[in-house]
Amino acid sequence: MNRLLQDLRIVEFSAFVAAPLGGMTMAQFGAEVIRIDPVGGAIDYNRWPVTDSGDSLYWAGLNKAKRSVALALDKPEGREIARAIATAPGPGAGIVLTNLPPLRGLDYTSLKAERDDVILLRLTGNRDGTAAVDYTVNAASGFPLVTGQSNATGGGLPVNHVLPAWDIAAGLYLAAALLAAERHRSRTGEGQEVVMALSDVMLAAVGHLGYVGDVHINGRARPAIGNDLYGSFGRDFATADGRRVMIIALTPRQWRALGQATGLADRLALAGRMMEVDLETETGRFEARDAIAALLARWCAARSLAEIRDAFAGTGVLWGAFQDFVGLVRDDPRCSPENPLFAAVDQPGIGRFPMPGLPLDFSASPRQPTPPAPRLGEHTDQVLSEVLGLPPAEIARLHDTGIAAGTAAK
Amino acid sequence: MNRLLQDLRIVEFSAFVAAPLGGMTMAQFGAEVIRIDPVGGAIDYNRWPVTDSGDSLYWAGLNKAKRSVALALDKPEGREIARAIATAPGPGAGIVLTNLPPLRGLDYTSLKAERDDVILLRLTGNRDGTAAVDYTVNAASGFPLVTGQSNATGGGLPVNHVLPAWDIAAGLYLAAALLAAERHRSRTGEGQEVVMALSDVMLAAVGHLGYVGDVHINGRARPAIGNDLYGSFGRDFATADGRRVMIIALTPRQWRALGQATGLADRLALAGRMMEVDLETETGRFEARDAIAALLARWCAARSLAEIRDAFAGTGVLWGAFQDFVGLVRDDPRCSPENPLFAAVDQPGIGRFPMPGLPLDFSASPRQPTPPAPRLGEHTDQVLSEVLGLPPAEIARLHDTGIAAGTAAK
Repeated sequence: MNRLLQDLRIVEFSAFVAAPLGGMTMAQFGAEVIRIDPVGGAIDYNRWPVTDSGDSLYWAGLNKAKRSVALALDKPEGREIARAIATAPGPGAGIVLTNLPPLRGLDYTSLKAERDDVILLRLTGNRDGTAAVDYTVNAASGFPLVTGQSNATGGGLPVNHVLPAWDIAAGLYLAAALLAAERHRSRTGEGQEVVMALSDVMLAAVGHLGYVGDVHINGRARPAIGNDLYGSFGRDFATADGRRVMIIALTPRQWRALGQATGLADRLALAGRMMEVDLETETGRFEARDAIAALLARWCAARSLAEIRDAFAGTGVLWGAFQDFVGLVRDDPRCSPENPLFAAVDQPGIGRFPMPGLPLDFSASPRQPTPPAPRLGEHTDQVLSEVLGLPPAEIARLHDTGIAAGTAAK
Repeated sequence: MNRLLQDLRIVEFSAFVAAPLGGMTMAQFGAEVIRIDPVGGAIDYNRWPVTDSGDSLYWAGLNKAKRSVALALDKPEGREIARAIATAPGPGAGIVLTNLPPLRGLDYTSLKAERDDVILLRLTGNRDGTAAVDYTVNAASGFPLVTGQSNATGGGLPVNHVLPAWDIAAGLYLAAALLAAERHRSRTGEGQEVVMALSDVMLAAVGHLGYVGDVHINGRARPAIGNDLYGSFGRDFATADGRRVMIIALTPRQWRALGQATGLADRLALAGRMMEVDLETETGRFEARDAIAALLARWCAARSLAEIRDAFAGTGVLWGAFQDFVGLVRDDPRCSPENPLFAAVDQPGIGRFPMPGLPLDFSASPRQPTPPAPRLGEHTDQVLSEVLGLPPAEIARLHDTGIAAGTAAK
């Protein structure tokens, strides 16, 4: 993390990936992010992956560097305190981020009644208010039907992505939207409500990538082509030692590098003559891809991953080896504290392991260690005291009446 | 788009998805975004999908609402003019976004020499400067080996995502980073260089989602489970009319809604007794998922998609139908101008079709129509005149000497 946004305070009511990632991105930019959860935790508090003791690595991963407040959001007094925290004064405060259905007293009208310049960022499922999550949005996107096996080899069944890509995009859109809205407020004094539907995030991406136009203008959609790159050359190959590698030639330079590094330049050129295409063009390489792959497959199958790595080192060939999560974590130095992105962090209740910070280096705001995720309710008393100025006796009363909870509540 | 950032000017040197999406996001927030390309276009100018005449729907999709300038970036004078545009005065100007290797004269030191408070945002492949693209980063991420068929049914071969999810995340990180850096500059007067590696975007996401901790703490990684939701209930089912639907029960409320809407509540409860798990918990539903699915599969197989839609309407069941790109574009009203996200736009050289704007609604900054993508070089003369104040005779000389080009160059 860094300290670029350390004068901002964001109050988050959230669950799952998108809004928590949006808030965490702000926290990793140095903002004070207070996640307010119901006593006992929100619906994502035990999401998998979990440790053997049931602690959620997912929750810890998506809530690093935040403060945690636990309040009885099912009771009017709990919501009233939450609203007071969300609308507390201060030029960088009064910013609320949520992907939950609005609770009474925490909708935009109620928040604005307390603080006229409040900024509320709200993620919904569909624009009409109906529920949608990454899985349902993805099903509608068209992508699962072009993922996995190609049409030629028996595709046709949908394949879901495992990365919650729409949630991640939504979280990052929220971060950018928050900064745009806060910039507007700092210049004009005007707050606002910002609403985004997860399905619109998907629709915008499908359109931006050209697939909406493809159907409208061309009357067709791209086919399923397995792991091949669409419109140029890229495919995965088996190595002699049972690994697989992705080899790509998007640019003429990469294409020439591939011919040189493999020693196959002359014979690859024959693939172009055979298929009567210009292999210097992306379209030509795409059309000749099976012929190109026939030769590369044999070359890869005769070599171990290490031999391929040696052959490609420093050549400008664009390639990468497939690895599983265990390989990534244990064998890839990029996924370790050798990479400044990571630092070993003690996560209470879980243990010490490398956690990523913000994947951005700012020359004017050096990287700071990312704090772990809070324990649920860890900052309830601090926030009640610091933000609302409540005296200890009042905080004690809120605990006694079940309106507020500390970490013991887990 | 809206006008929230209309006082900003961003100069973009880019190709492919990530940096163009970052720039386009800024353009859709109202910023003036000038994409400077080599004469004849950058490497992505003809990327697929394309029309039958070879015009790129992809390029058009990722460069909407920008201005296009074509300069001979391979010549010192072309780079000098590009640097002058990038560092032109103005409180909202002097912001540069790129994912290309630095050209001589367009690196941070050279830009800063012209304008001390310049902000340069630079996307690289790997942190060490070696090349990486979405395909190679994804291969290393671990996700392809848990995508597609489950381990139980013959998985093991990597399945690439088709959505360039890492590029999209990177583009949106760049948008947020730009706003954070500009906020810092507007408060302190200090510019900076911001660097992000695409592989770090991947690594951060894998860590945030808990998969790095899973290996470190648990010594294991999640298995491939096909289209199933990890850690709760979600699976795809065939309908009587040859469609497929995704049905999910993440929350107890969704689980109860599913039992009620299908009329299977009592028999689903038997799955819990049979498997000796509590179906009110996510873990319980995950452990009993095959038993649950056995019953739901038969229910879905006996019904058409329309019948399932009717059965689930208004019930709170979380579900969605799979559709291909053609179905999305032709049959889904969310992907049409019925949705304010879309507007029919005339794209020069391509035609009129619905294009998405920003998937965000700002109450204080109403949605504006998104302009189409420019033709390459469409704004060369305008920018040379407006930004650099060059007289017509000088602009003519730049055309005559091949340093600048207008749209005729295509």
